[in-house]
Amino acid sequence: MARASGARLRPHFKTHDSAVVAGWYREAGVDQITVSSIDMAVRFARLGWSDITIAFPANLRAHRRLRALAERVHLGLLADSVATVQGLSDALLHATDLWIEVDVGYGRSGVRWDDEDGLIALGAEVLRSRSLRLRGVLTHAGHTYQVRTLAEVQRIHAESMARITFAHRVLTESTGSHLEISVGDTPSCSAMDRIEGASELRPGNFVFYDIQQLTLGSCAETDLALMVACPIVGVYPERGEIVVHGGAVHLSKDSARLPGGGVCHGRIAKLATSPWSLWSPDSYVSAVSQEHGLVRCEPELLDSIAVGDLLLIVPAHACLAANSVRRTVLI
Amino acid sequence: MARASGARLRPHFKTHDSAVVAGWYREAGVDQITVSSIDMAVRFARLGWSDITIAFPANLRAHRRLRALAERVHLGLLADSVATVQGLSDALLHATDLWIEVDVGYGRSGVRWDDEDGLIALGAEVLRSRSLRLRGVLTHAGHTYQVRTLAEVQRIHAESMARITFAHRVLTESTGSHLEISVGDTPSCSAMDRIEGASELRPGNFVFYDIQQLTLGSCAETDLALMVACPIVGVYPERGEIVVHGGAVHLSKDSARLPGGGVCHGRIAKLATSPWSLWSPDSYVSAVSQEHGLVRCEPELLDSIAVGDLLLIVPAHACLAANSVRRTVLI
Repeated sequence: MARASGARLRPHFKTHDSAVVAGWYREAGVDQITVSSIDMAVRFARLGWSDITIAFPANLRAHRRLRALAERVHLGLLADSVATVQGLSDALLHATDLWIEVDVGYGRSGVRWDDEDGLIALGAEVLRSRSLRLRGVLTHAGHTYQVRTLAEVQRIHAESMARITFAHRVLTESTGSHLEISVGDTPSCSAMDRIEGASELRPGNFVFYDIQQLTLGSCAETDLALMVACPIVGVYPERGEIVVHGGAVHLSKDSARLPGGGVCHGRIAKLATSPWSLWSPDSYVSAVSQEHGLVRCEPELLDSIAVGDLLLIVPAHACLAANSVRRTVLI
Repeated sequence: MARASGARLRPHFKTHDSAVVAGWYREAGVDQITVSSIDMAVRFARLGWSDITIAFPANLRAHRRLRALAERVHLGLLADSVATVQGLSDALLHATDLWIEVDVGYGRSGVRWDDEDGLIALGAEVLRSRSLRLRGVLTHAGHTYQVRTLAEVQRIHAESMARITFAHRVLTESTGSHLEISVGDTPSCSAMDRIEGASELRPGNFVFYDIQQLTLGSCAETDLALMVACPIVGVYPERGEIVVHGGAVHLSKDSARLPGGGVCHGRIAKLATSPWSLWSPDSYVSAVSQEHGLVRCEPELLDSIAVGDLLLIVPAHACLAANSVRRTVLI
């Protein structure tokens, strides 16, 4: 899809944070990546990745680590305030790409897309810097994760593209520079056949997908690629429930909607089917405490398992589950 | 309070999972502990703790690790099914305490308190084992975390004690053994001046407390002992908000009620006051994504901070935050 759109794919590596999955990307020709923290940037720099954007507002307290990283790799940083641009400019000694983060409606970080004065002031500040190179405008339209249908995703995506394009024009005109546009949440990238007007796309979640994305319609069951193998430690037929070792510290407390209403922390995959398939939405992780996962089971599932078996759970939110569970062996 | 109740204190170490905090307990005379996983038991065994209960349904898939641990420390395990008791009995070579886990109404793991046949069958199965020693009945009345007032906590506690005492009597009579009663969630232990009828108490959260417990009334602001120091990376006066590096992978996605309704993922502590004090409930973490924390700020707080400063966040749920953030340096 990135190729069809004429855009660079700079996948977000926070979803997997894995040297193995990173290797699969490299085999597919990817050589520019996105990460969400300095720690993660350092890890992937050590693995030989040399073009890394930290898609998180640059943290001035970490200026020494950013300076060391900029010496080593082609680094991209985000800023949405003059104070941050000034701080980075003072701290960095090596040429570093600066993306101006734009808020297109998500309401988290970024300059408001229609704050022309703010955008112009930021652009001017970056141009004054000797170390920073104004690369373009960047946004994360995270509100696509909060809607219920692909049609709503497409509406938000169209609105977001119009808004980031407006901010891009304001900055292009005020700075006289050639600037890029970086976008790309997984719901939008999944809902669109092509994305016009973007220089690069940064989806991350799509490498695994999860129940949130399945419910939204971003993917099919057979696209689900992350499961947590949880030992069954309790079976309660009279309640139609089982308890697994797989709690908030493994799956996270994040949740996804179920087709019939209600929420879950994950759904259950069938063992030994290829491709993967799920048990019906009547079987799901209904509650998590620190180490316990409580699973509601349809009768056929309940009849097929016993204490000591494994249950394969597809998490509600793959990024958080992968982050939590990756260094843990449960089985 | 444990002393006044004539009960042993076997604190739950999952809240801190820290060698330093463990040392404070040891100085206070504690030498018997509770943990929530085999990994944690192994860590504290290495630190010299020799009497450890794993307060989680024993995982038969981990029988080799359990066997090795039982060789090394005085180990306590939980079971609520004959299958688990049989599996443990076959796997373990060294004398191991077996606690029968009882469900007093929380509805997670445990034999139902009024399932006399189930209790009797379990007790008989443990007595048949050569390695397992029937130690007593154990429960976690986790539903005290879900109510809104200390009066409700006290009501659940009274009901739970009556129920576990019933199960205790069933097992004492059927086995002819002297059996203990182990209880002790933090809300109950905080709401009661003394707890009658328990052999041991296993609270954990009280070592830090958190916003969930503050809202419930289990503790005062000055008892709050865990804060996450988060760099401020964005300030948005027009929205009355700031963004910090402190998201779901640090604070967890867990939430607490605010006094005026609504929920939060944490509240804000004032810097440089002793003892700690909090900003008003108008300042709180309103949303978390993987790395971002979005903080609603009262005007006075907003006026006092800038990009690059630190914000001290008291998490909604200390156990999950400590587990997530303990190996991370954010500042």
